[in-house]
Amino acid sequence: MASQTKPVLHGYYRSSCSWRVRIAFALKGMEYDQVPVNLVRDGGQQLTTRFKALNPMQQVPAVTIDGFTLSQSLAIIQYIEETRPEPHLLPSEPKTRAQVRMICDIIASGIQPLQNLYVLLKIGEEKIHWGQHFIQRGFEALEPILVQTAGKYCVGNEISMADLCLVPQVYNAERFKVDVTQFPTIKRLNETLLQHEAFKTSHPSCQPDTPDDMPI
Amino acid sequence: MASQTKPVLHGYYRSSCSWRVRIAFALKGMEYDQVPVNLVRDGGQQLTTRFKALNPMQQVPAVTIDGFTLSQSLAIIQYIEETRPEPHLLPSEPKTRAQVRMICDIIASGIQPLQNLYVLLKIGEEKIHWGQHFIQRGFEALEPILVQTAGKYCVGNEISMADLCLVPQVYNAERFKVDVTQFPTIKRLNETLLQHEAFKTSHPSCQPDTPDDMPI
Repeated sequence: MASQTKPVLHGYYRSSCSWRVRIAFALKGMEYDQVPVNLVRDGGQQLTTRFKALNPMQQVPAVTIDGFTLSQSLAIIQYIEETRPEPHLLPSEPKTRAQVRMICDIIASGIQPLQNLYVLLKIGEEKIHWGQHFIQRGFEALEPILVQTAGKYCVGNEISMADLCLVPQVYNAERFKVDVTQFPTIKRLNETLLQHEAFKTSHPSCQPDTPDDMPI
Repeated sequence: MASQTKPVLHGYYRSSCSWRVRIAFALKGMEYDQVPVNLVRDGGQQLTTRFKALNPMQQVPAVTIDGFTLSQSLAIIQYIEETRPEPHLLPSEPKTRAQVRMICDIIASGIQPLQNLYVLLKIGEEKIHWGQHFIQRGFEALEPILVQTAGKYCVGNEISMADLCLVPQVYNAERFKVDVTQFPTIKRLNETLLQHEAFKTSHPSCQPDTPDDMPI
């Protein structure tokens, strides 16, 4: 049955890493089911034994696809890319691919991890300042890189994995009250990408688990 | 001239991300030059204008290769893999490749970023406890995953990118006084890999910039 073969995304509407995966599914035109994992309700549904079996890191997203379960958004997206190549999310030329991956990793290893819930819980009441500090630092590095690589999108004129990382990170930046107007290239790319259907339908504001009174 | 075509690694002997790249060069049998960037001397040589032009994130490693400069260790290693495929550091089967990337990203996005120097400087005197906490948390997740995926190495019986991430992270764990005997699979894999020539020659204890009185 088709319903058995659809991937299942275990995610959370405003997790930036879950959003990356939703954009990938949308760009690839893949149908999928969503199982919401509410990171704050019930003390955190990612902490249950059931979810821990899917992802021992107790983080979203986790995706069940093709009979196995994967965690880590970039590993998930690259698996989708390698098994459903069209449209490509990585360019074919090795140096350009490397630039895409570098931008992804600056965000996925250099910026986003410092805003993970389990880190913010450890920081406590300073968490807004903490998050702001590391997003500001990261964007100060990312802006001059994007000035070099960007065309219409982060790397040239084709949407790539880098764009899937950028837009959710800008969304996080706004949550942490970082002034994105300091970074004109980041701001311009984000605005362009938010006009794209795949980024609109995957947006945190319109997911099955988005609350009616969604906080920004 | 051959010397002009050798890659240049801008790194630091005990940076775990620099070590990942050194292992890749060693496994691929690639000659390279090292330009040490001392993260503590002179207030941090990664903060100079000259280094910032190589990597605006002001982190090591950065690698100049084939006429361009890349940062982010996993982007560097995948570029090397795509341009110098032998011996492979990623398996050919998509699900197994995805497992390798998942393990890499658990370490590179979920564990290591919390021990970056610029994070520890923000934490201050609690830094050892902080680092310990996040390595312990990460290894508690990684151990059951490796129980499922490991053969002789992290994923099956071939060395992969996952092994390049694991060994430097265990080295960090020891620096932060995490008791690795709690994690028998991690401990066993690390011991096996440390016997391998590529992991020995790339070890922090024997680099051009390793001080005679190296702290552990």
